Amino acid sequence: MLNSKKLIKELKKDLTPDNVLATVEECYAYAQDASNVRKITAIPDAVVFVKSTEEVLRVVKSARRYKIPVICRGAGTNTVGACTVEHGGIILNFSKMNKIIEINKENMTARVQPGVVLGDLQKAVGEYGLFYPPDPSNLRVSTVGGSIAQSSGGAKTFKYGSTKDYILDLQVVTADEKILRTGSNTVKNATGYNLTSLFVGSEGTLGIVTEATLKLIPKPEAHKVIMAYFNTVEEAVDTVNMIIAQRISPAAIDFMDANAIKTVEKFYPAGLLCDKEAALIIEIDGFISSIDYQKKLIEDILERTNAAAIQISDSEEEYEKIWTARRSSMGACAKLKPNVTTDDVIVPRCNLAKLIRGIRMICDKYQLEACLVGHVGDGSVHPQIPINYKDDDEYKRYKLAKSEIYDLTAKLGGILSGEHGIGAEKRPYISKVVNGVALDYMRAVKKLFDPENILNPYKIF
Amino acid sequence: MLNSKKLIKELKKDLTPDNVLATVEECYAYAQDASNVRKITAIPDAVVFVKSTEEVLRVVKSARRYKIPVICRGAGTNTVGACTVEHGGIILNFSKMNKIIEINKENMTARVQPGVVLGDLQKAVGEYGLFYPPDPSNLRVSTVGGSIAQSSGGAKTFKYGSTKDYILDLQVVTADEKILRTGSNTVKNATGYNLTSLFVGSEGTLGIVTEATLKLIPKPEAHKVIMAYFNTVEEAVDTVNMIIAQRISPAAIDFMDANAIKTVEKFYPAGLLCDKEAALIIEIDGFISSIDYQKKLIEDILERTNAAAIQISDSEEEYEKIWTARRSSMGACAKLKPNVTTDDVIVPRCNLAKLIRGIRMICDKYQLEACLVGHVGDGSVHPQIPINYKDDDEYKRYKLAKSEIYDLTAKLGGILSGEHGIGAEKRPYISKVVNGVALDYMRAVKKLFDPENILNPYKIF
Repeated sequence: MLNSKKLIKELKKDLTPDNVLATVEECYAYAQDASNVRKITAIPDAVVFVKSTEEVLRVVKSARRYKIPVICRGAGTNTVGACTVEHGGIILNFSKMNKIIEINKENMTARVQPGVVLGDLQKAVGEYGLFYPPDPSNLRVSTVGGSIAQSSGGAKTFKYGSTKDYILDLQVVTADEKILRTGSNTVKNATGYNLTSLFVGSEGTLGIVTEATLKLIPKPEAHKVIMAYFNTVEEAVDTVNMIIAQRISPAAIDFMDANAIKTVEKFYPAGLLCDKEAALIIEIDGFISSIDYQKKLIEDILERTNAAAIQISDSEEEYEKIWTARRSSMGACAKLKPNVTTDDVIVPRCNLAKLIRGIRMICDKYQLEACLVGHVGDGSVHPQIPINYKDDDEYKRYKLAKSEIYDLTAKLGGILSGEHGIGAEKRPYISKVVNGVALDYMRAVKKLFDPENILNPYKIF
Repeated sequence: MLNSKKLIKELKKDLTPDNVLATVEECYAYAQDASNVRKITAIPDAVVFVKSTEEVLRVVKSARRYKIPVICRGAGTNTVGACTVEHGGIILNFSKMNKIIEINKENMTARVQPGVVLGDLQKAVGEYGLFYPPDPSNLRVSTVGGSIAQSSGGAKTFKYGSTKDYILDLQVVTADEKILRTGSNTVKNATGYNLTSLFVGSEGTLGIVTEATLKLIPKPEAHKVIMAYFNTVEEAVDTVNMIIAQRISPAAIDFMDANAIKTVEKFYPAGLLCDKEAALIIEIDGFISSIDYQKKLIEDILERTNAAAIQISDSEEEYEKIWTARRSSMGACAKLKPNVTTDDVIVPRCNLAKLIRGIRMICDKYQLEACLVGHVGDGSVHPQIPINYKDDDEYKRYKLAKSEIYDLTAKLGGILSGEHGIGAEKRPYISKVVNGVALDYMRAVKKLFDPENILNPYKIF
């Protein structure tokens, strides 16, 4: 504690004092993230709003001297406890380090600070006719830095890939106070090891990203979203396979199960069909001239697969309305119980229907409500489970269900996280899907980059 | 030498004796690769045709015991000395480990052994309506394993990305004789560190890939290629920028400079326009319904930029003819002198015209002929330089020119290799573009995965 006080004094001296929060009241809000931890066991020693790479370096220097952890935080929207502080530490808050440094139209790249909000970035590059595809559903608040840390995906990864496919270069402050540039400002790079990809998804455990160069692509000219309902999950998945067999790469193919449909309709009435087992939300994009062609092909398939109540967006308003229904699922779930949790298990698509049915059975067995949404194209499922953390019995059932869901995912050839990361929450389960040899190498890599274990310790493995 | 004899005896005992080559005559052919080394200083101690992961393990065990390097080889088509044996060693030849284990249409994945030829893979997945985009121009002979080792690209990386974007999972035999699985059979993965991407482009220096799971995408319905000529390199690059500004992502945008055009026309007459400074080869693809739209937009742009002699493929025959002209450049260059070398420097596209003009000036200064081709969309240039290795003076000028080309690339914000790798050839120059901190980490990563330095040593850095 004495050390902690000295550290805070030093930080206030090194940085703008107003940017260093250190009272219990101020730090309490940063004791957890959107993973919605059940019991807060520790709060940060300090929360530091950094504004430059130089300031990050100074914090790392102090942290090393006092052997205190450093935990990076963007908007704190991650759902796996990737920026919680179970063992104390300094929260490096990047929300004020949020400049878009450059958008280069000709190179189709953007250079940004980690605190830039993804939605702001998408809007800014859109004005140049460019597009940054990764779109986690919280993109109106979540940051570039957070999406790099967690290797975020979103609805559009089926066609466009995830964050890792769009990071060309990172500037990183290392645990030994050096500045590392991981890649290059070019769209291809076969010059030495791919350190960039090693940092994407490393959850702030290997180094602190202070700048990123992103790859952009031409913005699709037009888009349309199609929503349709099915009597069985299998029919929905079969429909997706039939669409892809027509050589269409939909920008997104999301789904909602019966419970998700009903829960959204209950709290945000939008005329959804509550007697159906599944809904698909299919976005097509591309040249205006290709939209009608894709639409027609998909309509024909939907007819053959007995889809009901097919809606097709004919305006931006309708487009937003359909997506809002899908994206409201988590918010609607949150109204059922005091807390809500989500997850992002993923399997090869051929096993997706089995995973969905299995999760439903597990949740029924443990008497848990669950809204299942996800990205069918990718084979990923977000089981959103409303829960009352104060109900010990329910919490116990919830933990048992989670463990069984992970076992099932492993059995179906899948992994624990497609796009949220592992953090503190899923750490106990990672060995269910990652083999011992790989875990040993991951631990060795961690030790190589952070021998004193000060960068977001006790996460991932 | 005694050790070497014992080792060979052991290898012949452990493996099928016919698959172990050990005479000087047999091994000589494997002393170099397509990098076309000037002087062979060492030949392999043995060349082993492996047929399974188990056999690879056995070779690694022997190599460790005798402290002898192990160098993986696919088709040996790499151009940077990535599988040469300056210090002796065992060549692990994967050409007989070439099974396509599985093509899963629903998951859109392929599981393959490293020796599979890329062209065979493309053909095989095409029969399922699927597409594996990485297409180095030697894809009729080059292998999946080699393309993973060198992080290969090709003409289609502008739209589709390079090898690293299509590798989901690798099975790797490690230097300490373990079997590591780096990723998962899912299209997204945020479960622990991205070891897969660390291996892609590591040129066999971190582990030995014995199986790969590849991501596939729906095969575009149609394609067309457009060829046009320009009076200046700048006009060609401007044209590319104008096309992309129309939100078109051409599948490929390659170019040839005046020398490349003339040299191809000289040896493979195809009616190319030899009085022009540059030619663009633009491939568009997608739905049949979108091809005419893209073609019309590009034609309009070409008209505005004074392009001459616009050819548009109207059949597969014409399509192949145009691409053959572009791909013949290296072969044509090889007819000018006893040897020919290539390279793959890359810069942000806004500096591409400067790079092309600069390389031309450097080659003129050192009285070297050079055919410049490349991928404009990516900003990458392949200077193909015909040379007579026996001419000491020419070789000296060649080396000076190379060093200046790398300096220029670095000055223009680029890097040494976009898609060929570094190998032994470009190793002396890597510090021109990769900072010391990154190189130190790369060396540390190498030491972590291969502490005894037996896996393709003395490469990259």
